[in-house]
Amino acid sequence: MINIGVIGYGYWGPNLVRNFSEPPESQVVAVSDMNQKRLALVKNRYPAVEVTGNYKDLLSNPRIDAIAIATPVSSHYELARQALKNGKHVFVEKPMTATVEQAERLIEEAERCQLTLMVDHTFIYTGAVSKIKEVLDSGRLGHLYYYDSVRVNLGLFQHDVNVLWDLAVHDLSIMDYLVGVDPQAVSATGMSHVQGQPENMAYLTCFFENKMIAHFHVNWLSPVKIRQTLLGGDRQMIVYDDLEPSEKVRIYDKGITLNDGKEHVYQMMIGYRTGDMWAPQLDNTEALRIEAAHFVECVQQKKLPLTDGKAGLRIVRILELASKSLAERGKLVEIKY
Amino acid sequence: MINIGVIGYGYWGPNLVRNFSEPPESQVVAVSDMNQKRLALVKNRYPAVEVTGNYKDLLSNPRIDAIAIATPVSSHYELARQALKNGKHVFVEKPMTATVEQAERLIEEAERCQLTLMVDHTFIYTGAVSKIKEVLDSGRLGHLYYYDSVRVNLGLFQHDVNVLWDLAVHDLSIMDYLVGVDPQAVSATGMSHVQGQPENMAYLTCFFENKMIAHFHVNWLSPVKIRQTLLGGDRQMIVYDDLEPSEKVRIYDKGITLNDGKEHVYQMMIGYRTGDMWAPQLDNTEALRIEAAHFVECVQQKKLPLTDGKAGLRIVRILELASKSLAERGKLVEIKY
Amino acid sequence: MINIGVIGYGYWGPNLVRNFSEPPESQVVAVSDMNQKRLALVKNRYPAVEVTGNYKDLLSNPRIDAIAIATPVSSHYELARQALKNGKHVFVEKPMTATVEQAERLIEEAERCQLTLMVDHTFIYTGAVSKIKEVLDSGRLGHLYYYDSVRVNLGLFQHDVNVLWDLAVHDLSIMDYLVGVDPQAVSATGMSHVQGQPENMAYLTCFFENKMIAHFHVNWLSPVKIRQTLLGGDRQMIVYDDLEPSEKVRIYDKGITLNDGKEHVYQMMIGYRTGDMWAPQLDNTEALRIEAAHFVECVQQKKLPLTDGKAGLRIVRILELASKSLAERGKLVEIKY
Amino acid sequence: MINIGVIGYGYWGPNLVRNFSEPPESQVVAVSDMNQKRLALVKNRYPAVEVTGNYKDLLSNPRIDAIAIATPVSSHYELARQALKNGKHVFVEKPMTATVEQAERLIEEAERCQLTLMVDHTFIYTGAVSKIKEVLDSGRLGHLYYYDSVRVNLGLFQHDVNVLWDLAVHDLSIMDYLVGVDPQAVSATGMSHVQGQPENMAYLTCFFENKMIAHFHVNWLSPVKIRQTLLGGDRQMIVYDDLEPSEKVRIYDKGITLNDGKEHVYQMMIGYRTGDMWAPQLDNTEALRIEAAHFVECVQQKKLPLTDGKAGLRIVRILELASKSLAERGKLVEIKY
Repeated sequence: MINIGVIGYGYWGPNLVRNFSEPPESQVVAVSDMNQKRLALVKNRYPAVEVTGNYKDLLSNPRIDAIAIATPVSSHYELARQALKNGKHVFVEKPMTATVEQAERLIEEAERCQLTLMVDHTFIYTGAVSKIKEVLDSGRLGHLYYYDSVRVNLGLFQHDVNVLWDLAVHDLSIMDYLVGVDPQAVSATGMSHVQGQPENMAYLTCFFENKMIAHFHVNWLSPVKIRQTLLGGDRQMIVYDDLEPSEKVRIYDKGITLNDGKEHVYQMMIGYRTGDMWAPQLDNTEALRIEAAHFVECVQQKKLPLTDGKAGLRIVRILELASKSLAERGKLVEIKY
Repeated sequence: MINIGVIGYGYWGPNLVRNFSEPPESQVVAVSDMNQKRLALVKNRYPAVEVTGNYKDLLSNPRIDAIAIATPVSSHYELARQALKNGKHVFVEKPMTATVEQAERLIEEAERCQLTLMVDHTFIYTGAVSKIKEVLDSGRLGHLYYYDSVRVNLGLFQHDVNVLWDLAVHDLSIMDYLVGVDPQAVSATGMSHVQGQPENMAYLTCFFENKMIAHFHVNWLSPVKIRQTLLGGDRQMIVYDDLEPSEKVRIYDKGITLNDGKEHVYQMMIGYRTGDMWAPQLDNTEALRIEAAHFVECVQQKKLPLTDGKAGLRIVRILELASKSLAERGKLVEIKY
Repeated sequence: MINIGVIGYGYWGPNLVRNFSEPPESQVVAVSDMNQKRLALVKNRYPAVEVTGNYKDLLSNPRIDAIAIATPVSSHYELARQALKNGKHVFVEKPMTATVEQAERLIEEAERCQLTLMVDHTFIYTGAVSKIKEVLDSGRLGHLYYYDSVRVNLGLFQHDVNVLWDLAVHDLSIMDYLVGVDPQAVSATGMSHVQGQPENMAYLTCFFENKMIAHFHVNWLSPVKIRQTLLGGDRQMIVYDDLEPSEKVRIYDKGITLNDGKEHVYQMMIGYRTGDMWAPQLDNTEALRIEAAHFVECVQQKKLPLTDGKAGLRIVRILELASKSLAERGKLVEIKY
Repeated sequence: MINIGVIGYGYWGPNLVRNFSEPPESQVVAVSDMNQKRLALVKNRYPAVEVTGNYKDLLSNPRIDAIAIATPVSSHYELARQALKNGKHVFVEKPMTATVEQAERLIEEAERCQLTLMVDHTFIYTGAVSKIKEVLDSGRLGHLYYYDSVRVNLGLFQHDVNVLWDLAVHDLSIMDYLVGVDPQAVSATGMSHVQGQPENMAYLTCFFENKMIAHFHVNWLSPVKIRQTLLGGDRQMIVYDDLEPSEKVRIYDKGITLNDGKEHVYQMMIGYRTGDMWAPQLDNTEALRIEAAHFVECVQQKKLPLTDGKAGLRIVRILELASKSLAERGKLVEIKY
């Protein structure tokens, strides 16, 4: 049995408490939040859980094995660092930290203490993304040409981070998991429409080796909600629409064929192939439930999480450099590893 | 009665011939194409129309008042220039020319000869775009924050121009008409996946004054066909989906509200407003029919076309600079006027 | 404060307990269920609520003002009757009873005891149905020609009632509320595909005065989930799609126009009119929450519920006669009032 | 080479002329219509085709091998009969005749004269219906439980036949082809909303042996256009949506499983199974083109058409009896063979 303490009971914290409470292998023993009303909610729903306005009560609580952090990103590093220092395993919300440097330090600290550090890249644990990974690994898409995602809706404007850190973080973590290689450079554009506030819409291009390219469109000011990703391979292609109630993942047996030909008969060179479409059945288990169980398993068996500190770092690195490019209106920023 | 000669009977030429043949005010008297099979098609459908393998027969034909040009973009300038020199009005396919310099010369030549020069920015003449223009002009969207379009499908790969010149040209001409102001800088990214061929997918950002931003996503290698444009204003927003059979234009009474507030109570500053959606009835008349009639009217009454040479130039200018940015992976290119 | 006892904690009971617990004007004090595992769930989530395996404990509990019944339909009558006899107000699941006779007796008993009898026709309390009612009452649809609904999906096969009692009950209650007049005859067809089980798919036509007609398609064995209703008026028409995430209700300014003309010029008589479409913003409050508050208000202020016993009776009457027609493969069954 | 004469150049006639003109094996030599304006249209598009206001000119023309009839249904029988009498093969629009008796006589006459009689059940020749037939014949759906179709839109009100003869004729012919067995009884309901005119909306149930059931919903007064068919088998199910641009046919690996169990444990008996969805690529060739070629082949090789006179009769029989049931508001009408 793993005992969990949760710091932060705002938007996402209740999901963490619920999902760490339900499995038999873990239980939530304490929750901290600076807002007393939020703590009253905890007490109402979970009378047996301790509540406190001071997160340090959790860090010093010897019954607690692991800390789950669901606070604004600016506090992630400090809270996670202290948790590790106090011998607690850490499960931290995305983005893992506010800077690359912080991410690197956390990874180092977790390794030093031999404690589990896992970042909550929730989508990785959905049935849809698992199935896409399986399809990609089977090789049926062939060589991957591009990854294109759109994640737009109306609200909720964040005040401390731009829309890339809030929305693109999901897509970057999905892409990172699916593609498995790191981008070499980024170019981002966008705009803030509210004086003094971070960018509320942004477009990010990631360049990879071998002509692979990825693009991300995120927007807090869209009249309609869109969650659509295209993956184009040289043999097959995928459309992943997270708002589809039943067929979220569609695999199209479509593509181009390149024929050898003399250079002057251009029209002969490229053929188009269209075939069947297939929408595989997906596992509908709540992603966070699978993820919570995975965290518990990693802690108990000292395994490396699928979304470990290094995964968190990779995403933070792209976000940091993308924000830099964004500030310079599309300037190409190379990524050093 | 205006007599038209059509140069080029490939993909789009048949539409020009049909639409200039039907109205009582114009008729097609001759068609030229280098391919005899295409000319046989003309003869079969329009026995009364003269056909020729040499476009110069059209230019020297005294019965012909105007030349419609539907050939590859690289030939537009030379054909249009010669037509003007021979005293013919010109209706030319988009993009108007292959370079800004060519566009400027054509405009100059047309003005000098007092002949009509019109570019076929077809979408401007659709019921959908007309209605959006009407809504924008009514002011109900408020200040326009952004324009975002996606135009992707599988094929047809062009060999002489990249995907911006082939697909984004449509969206740029729509934006130019709707927004009515010129961008100040562009940044474009993209990729060619076929060795030795132009870019088959691209992302283009246009920066405007007053925090307006526009973005264009075009792709010849998408498993699904998407034709979707979002226009975000500070009061209302529009979704224009050209593939919707009936409700192509939807106006959403949605937006954010900015409240005065002390700076430290960030959460108070931005409110979200959602209201009704309205899909106005659209005129379903074929755009090219309206456009053909407009060209004839402009020629007869010496009026300036809605899509005149200057409209053609504005689009070519963006395409030229976008291609430059594309080659330098997102480098910001300022536009001088 | 109204104290509620809930009988039955199966599929729907948890929603009743939650919605009667949250408002300040009511609280759930006890829950009965024959299944001990279900009672353990109650105890876990609501430690302060009494649980019992015997519903009679609720009827005899002097603290309890009202009984909410969420058991199989065959038990509704007996439970509701006993509750009224014990001086409790009654909130009962749909269909209200298994027969017309039972429904009539319950209404009589509630009137005699001056107690509130309300049936849970949940959809009446949704923002979508409220808005449609408002539109209908405004007269903009003109004379209502037809009501057509489809409610199909895969599962859950019921064993005690046919698919009309399980699914059409929703649509009949919506129609009853919206249309406000009673059908004069019914004709139903359908089929049972599982030996010894009730019909799993059915089609029901209701005939009204003045050429109004209603039709209901319900099916437990559909590969896709559909929840779509069409309302056709002589001036405007409505499409209500309950699965649409945002625009559930669409009002079409479409219809036919009848021109006076000599009888032999048939083609002149009917014109078609198409205009704008309008999707009004809807109240997203959970229907059961509004409904629970309405029940409490009716009890406290001795008001007649919107969905009173007579509304329950009207639906049961149609279901009873429709089942009779179903057994005789479409035979017309007149309804006597 | 087969020479065709076409009687009737209204809504559908132009499609017949075009499709019989294009293949090398057939040509249209003459067209008759009572409207001179329609004949002028023919002359304009097909200068080589003879036109006449008197269909008898076609019947007596020795150059003509076959007559295609695209006139109102009430005239089909007489025109087809005379054509056969004059030794012409016949291709006739759907519904084949206005009565069962007429259909039987035509079949008899064609057999007697050894001439081809084919009815234009166009949908049978689409890629979508061909693919569904292939899937059904493969047995993967298992035993077919039901066929359910919806074909509704706004207009065009017919004056001589009710909506079943105009719209359900398509679905009945598709069902007839796919299912391959005859219904044993029908029940139909519907309504006429325009004084003195035939029913403009109708619902038709067909009962088959072995618990198979089919239902058809047709309506000229719907605000939206719907063309959707569900086919439910005990192993798999199909959704055929003719308005889908790309994936018209979707095969769902879904169904119920029946477990042996003691009768009192009802809940154990029925399981639900959901699996992948598959949308096969479809042949996009114009159906009428395939059909025209098939007619020519049948004439030349004396083969029986896929949609022969007997297919036409089967559909007319259902329509005739359905109209009878419709007039008696759902009364069951048995079908004798």
